[in-house]
Amino acid sequence: MTHTLVLLRHGESEWNAKNLFTGWVDVALTEKGRAEAVRGGELIREAGLLPDVVHTSLQRRAINTACLALDAADRHWIPVKRSWRLNERHYGALQGKDKKQTLETFGEEQFMLWRRSFDVPPPPLDDDDEWSQAGDPRYADLGDELPRTECLKDVVVRFLPWWEDEIVPDLEAGHTVLVAAHGNSLRALVKHLDQISDEDIAGLNIPTGMPLVYRLDESMRPTVPGGEYLDPEAAAEAAAAVASQGR
Amino acid sequence: MTHTLVLLRHGESEWNAKNLFTGWVDVALTEKGRAEAVRGGELIREAGLLPDVVHTSLQRRAINTACLALDAADRHWIPVKRSWRLNERHYGALQGKDKKQTLETFGEEQFMLWRRSFDVPPPPLDDDDEWSQAGDPRYADLGDELPRTECLKDVVVRFLPWWEDEIVPDLEAGHTVLVAAHGNSLRALVKHLDQISDEDIAGLNIPTGMPLVYRLDESMRPTVPGGEYLDPEAAAEAAAAVASQGR
Repeated sequence: MTHTLVLLRHGESEWNAKNLFTGWVDVALTEKGRAEAVRGGELIREAGLLPDVVHTSLQRRAINTACLALDAADRHWIPVKRSWRLNERHYGALQGKDKKQTLETFGEEQFMLWRRSFDVPPPPLDDDDEWSQAGDPRYADLGDELPRTECLKDVVVRFLPWWEDEIVPDLEAGHTVLVAAHGNSLRALVKHLDQISDEDIAGLNIPTGMPLVYRLDESMRPTVPGGEYLDPEAAAEAAAAVASQGR
Repeated sequence: MTHTLVLLRHGESEWNAKNLFTGWVDVALTEKGRAEAVRGGELIREAGLLPDVVHTSLQRRAINTACLALDAADRHWIPVKRSWRLNERHYGALQGKDKKQTLETFGEEQFMLWRRSFDVPPPPLDDDDEWSQAGDPRYADLGDELPRTECLKDVVVRFLPWWEDEIVPDLEAGHTVLVAAHGNSLRALVKHLDQISDEDIAGLNIPTGMPLVYRLDESMRPTVPGGEYLDPEAAAEAAAAVASQGR
């Protein structure tokens, strides 16, 4: 018997549309992003997938994606679990900055290092910056653990305890689990599931609003490496568009 | 120190708008209902109330009201608890029936007995009726406990265990609790809180989308009987409109 895990990256946000680095800034979905979430839920329903529990980040764009997708899938009533550990990567001092302008200012090499290197974080964000999360009540419990910047390696480190302690037990209980999260927190999870190297993860892009289904064996290893998109053609197109951001 | 409990009845649903008995039928909010939910969340934010946890029914109109109101209140990220015990009263064989037509068919006395008596339920709904919840996966765990009809007394009986076991402990932990639910499940709770008699509860109407705040003492008794609406004038108008339904 396999376990079923469905990953869903939130639809387009206001800052995706403006081509800004977002990270932990809690922006809303655009109308397009809301439509993507509904479409994602319809794909889940049409595939006959029945999520029994949903895990989300603490960020509006993932939370509302979960609300909209589950409503469209007629599974709005399932239990909800949330954690900051599913949040997008903290983008440090780049939060609020224009991606194209950042590319022009710092050059291709530095830009790609910050965006896609495994272990080089951007400079940290000041606590008095307008885009800082210091003082945000939802992160009050984190104390000194509150990130000021993160590389993907940091995201893997803070995501995996949630995977081990909360998601795996739900899967082992026989539940179909939906994870509604972000480009980089889902990349961290996929890296772990598919045992992708620190180098190769740079080339992996997860498109918005496209449910990605993993069937996992008893050891929580994918029976199909890379999982399966419910709409593979649209997913391939969208992943190519993500890869070219900032150009 | 007092405990803070905020009650929010869902906004207008598609069947409120059509004047049909809804009960456990899982209808959606109308655009007006969605706007009411957002306004309710804005009132909560403007009052400086900070819900720490939300309790909802398993029904779409309450779940989406919670999503929209909490998003507007900037508290979308709080933990969510759901239970069928917060559902609307099951309206039995009246589910799907027009309120005005029911009044004309059965007469004023029978109509008001079904709507407002404490202990007279409508006739039960057949399991093969198109509006039955038999076979709905969200209620699979209920087994023989699945209601086929309910009077308000039945709602009190099935709501109170959730109050005692889940909501009171959250309040005692110091949390501000938001309950997003339904006309009759909230009447059941208010009857308990304010110790309203079986006769007097007939005259109590709770308007849609208007946050009702109870400050509770150590014994979970209201410091202000009846609680306080965040927008008292609008609430009084709306309650009068609810009372005249079917006319």
